[in-house]
This record gives sequence, C-alpha cells and structure tokens, in this order.
Amino acid sequence: MRNIKLTLAYDGTGYHGFQRQTNAIGIQQVLEDKLAKVFGHTFRIHMAGRTDAGVHAYGQVVNFKTSCTIPVDRIVIASRKVLPYDIVVTHAEEVPDSFDAQFSAKSKIYVYKIYQHTVPNPFWRNMIWTIPQTLDISAMENAMQIIVGTHDFSAFRASGGSSVSPVRTIMEVGCQLQGKILELSFWGNGFLYHMVRNLTGTLVNVGLGRTTNDGFKTILEGRDRKKAGATAPAHGLYLKEVLY
Amino acid sequence: MRNIKLTLAYDGTGYHGFQRQTNAIGIQQVLEDKLAKVFGHTFRIHMAGRTDAGVHAYGQVVNFKTSCTIPVDRIVIASRKVLPYDIVVTHAEEVPDSFDAQFSAKSKIYVYKIYQHTVPNPFWRNMIWTIPQTLDISAMENAMQIIVGTHDFSAFRASGGSSVSPVRTIMEVGCQLQGKILELSFWGNGFLYHMVRNLTGTLVNVGLGRTTNDGFKTILEGRDRKKAGATAPAHGLYLKEVLY
Repeated sequence: MRNIKLTLAYDGTGYHGFQRQTNAIGIQQVLEDKLAKVFGHTFRIHMAGRTDAGVHAYGQVVNFKTSCTIPVDRIVIASRKVLPYDIVVTHAEEVPDSFDAQFSAKSKIYVYKIYQHTVPNPFWRNMIWTIPQTLDISAMENAMQIIVGTHDFSAFRASGGSSVSPVRTIMEVGCQLQGKILELSFWGNGFLYHMVRNLTGTLVNVGLGRTTNDGFKTILEGRDRKKAGATAPAHGLYLKEVLY
Repeated sequence: MRNIKLTLAYDGTGYHGFQRQTNAIGIQQVLEDKLAKVFGHTFRIHMAGRTDAGVHAYGQVVNFKTSCTIPVDRIVIASRKVLPYDIVVTHAEEVPDSFDAQFSAKSKIYVYKIYQHTVPNPFWRNMIWTIPQTLDISAMENAMQIIVGTHDFSAFRASGGSSVSPVRTIMEVGCQLQGKILELSFWGNGFLYHMVRNLTGTLVNVGLGRTTNDGFKTILEGRDRKKAGATAPAHGLYLKEVLY
C-alpha cells in the first residue's frame, strides 16, 4: 500500500468542520466520498488537525493508504474534477509508510484575520472578522509576545478538547497589517481546543483598551478560562501550515 | 419628498442579478423589502445599472424618494441591521430632486478580475475567474488600448440589451497585476449588454496567443458578435464606480 499525503486549501463556510459527523457534512466526508472515485476504493483519511465549523485552511494536511497506482503528479488535477470548488488539493506526494498527518506533525501555524472598519466588506463576510472600533495594534503586538515560549494555556482552552496536557510551546507570533487586514499569526507545537480563537478574543480586548498587557499576563498565568475574553468567531481563522 | 442616494457593495453570488424578477431573488427586491423597515414605507428604487446574476459591485448606486425624516448619517448603520451580510450600504446622502441614479450617471467603471494559476483558490471561486494557462499581459494591455475612444461595440454586444445605439466611448482602460490578480478596468460613458464580459473573453484570447492585436482590431471593426471571443464568466466582474 502507498501512503499519500495531500495538502488542502478550503473555505470552511459551507461545512460543519473537518471531522466526519453523523448529522452534518464535514470536509472529511466530502474528501473520502469524492476521492474514492479518483483512487478506485474507499479509505479513511487521517488529518493533521481538525478545524471547526466555519474555520478555513490554506494548508491542512491529510494522509491515507491506497493500492491505486495513479502517479502523484496526476492527483491534484484528478482531485479537482471530483471535489467541490470550495475544497482544493494544492499538493500531493507519496510519503514513507510511517508518516501520519497528525502524529508526525512537529508544529502548526494558524492565522487570524481582522478587518477594522465601520462599514463591513460583503466579500469578506465569511472570511474575516470585522471590528468597527479602532484597535491599538502595537498594544496587541506587545501582548502577543507574552505567549511566546512554553506555558500552561488553560486560560485559553475551551472544554471539549481531547488533550491531556494544557502546556504548549509558541515559537513565534506575528501581528501585522496586510493591506487593510490585520493578521495575527501563531506558530506553535500544538494548540488546545479553541485556543487561537480564545487568544484572539482576549488580544482584541487589549487592542480595545479593555485589558492591559499586565492584565493579559495575569489572565495567562491565572489559568482560568472565565477570566479571558470571548471566543473570536470561527470565520476569521485559518490553518495556514503544518510543519513536519 | 426627500431624494436619497445610496452607494452599495454586494457579493452577487447568491442573487439572480440586480433587477427585481418574478421567479428568483434579485438584489433590488431584497433592498426594497428590507429597507422598507428602515424608512417606514415601501418604495421603488432606481439603479445606476443592472448587474447580471453572479456579478458583484463595489459601488452600485441607487436612489429613491422617501417621506422618512431619518438623518442621512444614520442610514448606513440602520441599513446594516436589516440587510443580509452580502449587501452593504457603504454611503448615503440626500440629493436634489432631479437626481436619478441611472439617467444622471455620466460614466461607469467596471473591473474584471482574473487569477492565473494552475491550482484554483477556494476562497476566490465566486469572486475571480481562474485561468490555468499563462497569459501574455503586455499583449492584452496593448489590445485594450484599441478600444479607447468612441466605437461601435456591436462585436461585443449580447442580444437582449435595451440600448438603441451600439456606440460607446471608452475613456480609459487598465490592465495590471494587483498581487496575484490581473485586474482589467474599463471606464466608459456606458456599456452594452455583456460588453465587458465579451471584451474580457476576447482579450483573454489575445493573452493566450489565439488572437493577435490586429485580429482584435478587426473584430472590433467587423461589428460581428460571432467573431469575438466567448463571454467571460459573470463572477469575475465588478461594477466599481458610477460617476455623476
């Protein structure tokens, strides 16, 4: 059996998250059902990380085993013919048998996009979180530096995740205007359930002057979810890259 | 009665064009039905130019008469509360009684967006026309200059439009890469039915080397729709601005 690794970009708007579910359409189900036509048999895919309903990806990674002999350089084009337009295979390669999209992953990069404007942009309604108030970007940038390193992120963890340890390492963060869009980026060895969205909600409180940098640090160290800000909406979040 | 002018941005993906129709939802119907709640009475809006199903707008203009005394600076926010997220009022003002969004318009700017890449972007599937082949952008730029000035545009006119004369004046054209997206812009005193999409389809033939610049000129001068290229898809087209 060959082990195939696919990199995927998708618009999560129309799906109830990545994972296969019984009562709603997840991206996993669409991939498994449609790609079965390309590979000639059914299979179960393994994903690098599940994304919630409405969350997007530039670089989700999955792998699966197949007996199909299709050349890897045909997979991207063949996939396009069977997948809906909101899910795109951007890269395909054959990997060693031991590769697992989830367990082989060393780190991930998530990006959260914010549009600061009083008038929303209709084209970005499902892609970017619009905030009408003015944000103090340099205050947000300073607060983000506090999470770099190894910390207990219990304050930013939603219930419902499967991880045992709340400790994660953030290698690098970014906070910069790309055109009119503020992009917060988080590069870490792993992320707890809703961690990026909870961090973003709290960082926006810093940007709005509702929380100071010291306050942000106290929230992180207090490990109490109830002290942190609200969960930022799903539609501003992107799984940008999975590193192996 | 006050005469109110609204500027609108909308994502045309979910609508069967701008104009009110009997068997499908047009943007006009949504505006009239929802804005009646803001202004307290029903009214009929006049639009600068109809856009087809799937065509977008950054700056569509409409006007209507109202007896409502709502201050103009409240209209943008009040409209947001009743309109769906894919239709946004970006500006509102009170104009003289003689102003008519369609008949007072002096000129319009349309933009057509093309993404030249072998792998489509799932976020742009309803926003930009993806072309996998390489385009000769400078050849397209040269061909676009041919349409500047006053011409009979019968070669690029679809049947079904209501205009009597096929003569239009193009004041300025643009052809430039904005990031990874090729933007063709057309500033003219008016446009025939499907004119921008038919011009774009033929310009793409130039970019692909299927039509020479001389061939493009011959098509324009021949005034025969059958000689021009295919109609470019609706979802790459934007009504950018209406000038008065």
